Amino acid sequence: MSKQKIKLGLFGFGCVGQGLYKVLEKNIGFKAEIVKICVRDKSLPRIISDHENVKGGYTYNQPSEGLFTCNKSDILDDPDINVVVEVTNDAEAALEIVVQALSKGKAVVTANKKMIAEHLKDILKLQQIYEVPVLYEAACCASIPVIRNFEEYYDNDFLSSFSGIMNGTTNYILSQIFARNISYEEALKSAQQKGYAESNPVMDINGYDSKYKLCILLAHAFGIAVDPSEIFNLGIQNINDFDIRFAKEKNSKIKLVARAQKLKSGGIAAFVLPELVSKDHQLYNVDGVFNGIVTESYFADKNIFIGKGAGEFPTASALLSDISALSYNYKYEYKKIHQNSSSFIDKDFLIDVYVRFRNSEVVNTYLFENIFERYFSKDNNYLTGRISFRNLIASGLLNKEGTNVILLNDIIKQSEEKLNILNSTVQTEVFV
Amino acid sequence: MSKQKIKLGLFGFGCVGQGLYKVLEKNIGFKAEIVKICVRDKSLPRIISDHENVKGGYTYNQPSEGLFTCNKSDILDDPDINVVVEVTNDAEAALEIVVQALSKGKAVVTANKKMIAEHLKDILKLQQIYEVPVLYEAACCASIPVIRNFEEYYDNDFLSSFSGIMNGTTNYILSQIFARNISYEEALKSAQQKGYAESNPVMDINGYDSKYKLCILLAHAFGIAVDPSEIFNLGIQNINDFDIRFAKEKNSKIKLVARAQKLKSGGIAAFVLPELVSKDHQLYNVDGVFNGIVTESYFADKNIFIGKGAGEFPTASALLSDISALSYNYKYEYKKIHQNSSSFIDKDFLIDVYVRFRNSEVVNTYLFENIFERYFSKDNNYLTGRISFRNLIASGLLNKEGTNVILLNDIIKQSEEKLNILNSTVQTEVFV
Repeated sequence: MSKQKIKLGLFGFGCVGQGLYKVLEKNIGFKAEIVKICVRDKSLPRIISDHENVKGGYTYNQPSEGLFTCNKSDILDDPDINVVVEVTNDAEAALEIVVQALSKGKAVVTANKKMIAEHLKDILKLQQIYEVPVLYEAACCASIPVIRNFEEYYDNDFLSSFSGIMNGTTNYILSQIFARNISYEEALKSAQQKGYAESNPVMDINGYDSKYKLCILLAHAFGIAVDPSEIFNLGIQNINDFDIRFAKEKNSKIKLVARAQKLKSGGIAAFVLPELVSKDHQLYNVDGVFNGIVTESYFADKNIFIGKGAGEFPTASALLSDISALSYNYKYEYKKIHQNSSSFIDKDFLIDVYVRFRNSEVVNTYLFENIFERYFSKDNNYLTGRISFRNLIASGLLNKEGTNVILLNDIIKQSEEKLNILNSTVQTEVFV
Repeated sequence: MSKQKIKLGLFGFGCVGQGLYKVLEKNIGFKAEIVKICVRDKSLPRIISDHENVKGGYTYNQPSEGLFTCNKSDILDDPDINVVVEVTNDAEAALEIVVQALSKGKAVVTANKKMIAEHLKDILKLQQIYEVPVLYEAACCASIPVIRNFEEYYDNDFLSSFSGIMNGTTNYILSQIFARNISYEEALKSAQQKGYAESNPVMDINGYDSKYKLCILLAHAFGIAVDPSEIFNLGIQNINDFDIRFAKEKNSKIKLVARAQKLKSGGIAAFVLPELVSKDHQLYNVDGVFNGIVTESYFADKNIFIGKGAGEFPTASALLSDISALSYNYKYEYKKIHQNSSSFIDKDFLIDVYVRFRNSEVVNTYLFENIFERYFSKDNNYLTGRISFRNLIASGLLNKEGTNVILLNDIIKQSEEKLNILNSTVQTEVFV
């Protein structure tokens, strides 16, 4: 669609959809027209609020009633519409929209991480079959152009790892805990009251949302399309005051980090775990709804990208960037998927963890390679030690009542030859 | 040059040139052939050192003697060579090479910030006349893809400011001062011994290198092509133990920051100054040879990009990224320069500064809008206060013997209506 005018059909008009409406009204360079907006309930009032933060205020033009429809085919069967923007919050309905849009030769821009992560292989195939692109920068860390940079900038470099804070809700909660000295329960409740956490917050809190983003990035960073069910995630749901005190005593914060790293085996370590982040770490100051991603590669070495990972405008900004890219025929090349078919998710590596428990009987210490510390008190006990990831999962410690596990540092030790523990710097990773 | 094989002519074979040679030998995806390397002295031994950091070592193929020439026309007149990579360290010679290469229809990739900054208008024109691109991602913060992101990602957003640590040498020196409790003189000497600072370090230390990068980014961020002589720079050359103690007492570090911000006037504030950076600021942990850039924009809000700003591999990685981009016909669009011809460098804004001085007579306090603190002791005195940037420059404080000036925070106050001081958040900046 070279230099062709972009005509949009929008599915969903919640926070993100309205953000896109505003962004399209106010952006400077690129112009695209919203032809139709498909919503569930046409009778709801659709009032675009003014922009309060702008000095003197700013009033947006209200969308005309005729813009709205409840009939999907008003978009999907309109030959004038060449780009479908999908910003609903229902992954299954979203997939159906994407499949139909592609089959009708319409490009798709979406922010739906669950849908992309769970159906990546299908979406890859559909893009090939129908020769139209799906772009989803907004699905990963909103305003951070991470997919684009993985696709473009690291395409010739040996990326050895990436890790980051990829969920704004949990980061907001954790930041509140450490900034305001409140408990996990208080912080969650306050986040829910402010609309930063949903009333059923499991997707965010238990690390699923982070995992979906991790899965998407695994494809662009390491060329591996993996089913989310293959990736382990522990969220922040088990964090208690004892864990928080432990972190503070170490001059650290707890962050929920999604992590992927190339191993000597050729496999990839990938998981979501709460992590102790010390003062001198680049993610330490990534607070509130900010996300942050750290990459390590052979040539560029360490890069860090930080930006708002949620919110109306940061997400809409990423959508706009994708829409604009479509106007010059941009598509993801998935070069690494094409180059690299031998990668696999490996669980045989060592990590250093803090394990908090109530009853010593729940911890099979023989599963550990090494125990660094043991601490016992009336209500809570902990140990720190080195354990293989496979054993950690098998141990059941990750979902036992009264226990919690926190990754102790950002160094993953590889256990291929059990005692030959390597410091996993970029340099040791690449030419093996 | 769509899908055409890239054939490179390389000018310069120092640290960066050799880095590129290695990177081209070892990169995975993209391939490009070095056809000729033009050097000053052909008789020098050209031995590519092995890679020591790689476990088990890695030995690069040595370049053949026939690859080298001292005759520029062996590259410029070779019709086979379609890309000239310019990595000499002589800005004037570099310009001549670039002009000749473009006139012969060869694309150019360069890391020469001084040359680009000083001749940006000419280089823009030449690209239009000869219809071949010049790419220079490596000229700004090496491994950070900042120009590319300014060009692509912020092209539809209202960028209101960017600022950052853009010089690795001064950041290394400042980091050593704060990490090792040593003096500026000791840190400079140690940096020179380690090869991080040149024997004549004026370009880095006095902030010229940061300024060149600032000028380049001004074009891509705000669409303004400015002569470096129009931009004020103070480096770290005046920092003494008293300044360092002041920063430490405030739980802060001193960083050399280049800064650009849109003002209400429609003008741009732009300068290089040492700056007090507090613990909770995203640049606080950007230490050593790392660079970091903070952007603020209307939709995406705050983004931070961090990465190595110097060194053989980080710079070569950026060069490779540009060379690879040429293979799919990438060029800078300079959209903002085309959109925006009315921007200008404005000096009428207020900033908060620390001024250290020996003799009170050197400080004309009537030039200040406001004095916050005055401190007097036997050897050193300081005041903190608010002053218009124009007055600060006129005051002569910036180059008086025994004085130093440090920017106190990252908020620039606008003095259009003198007492109507605005907090320069993104929101107040945009729709004015």
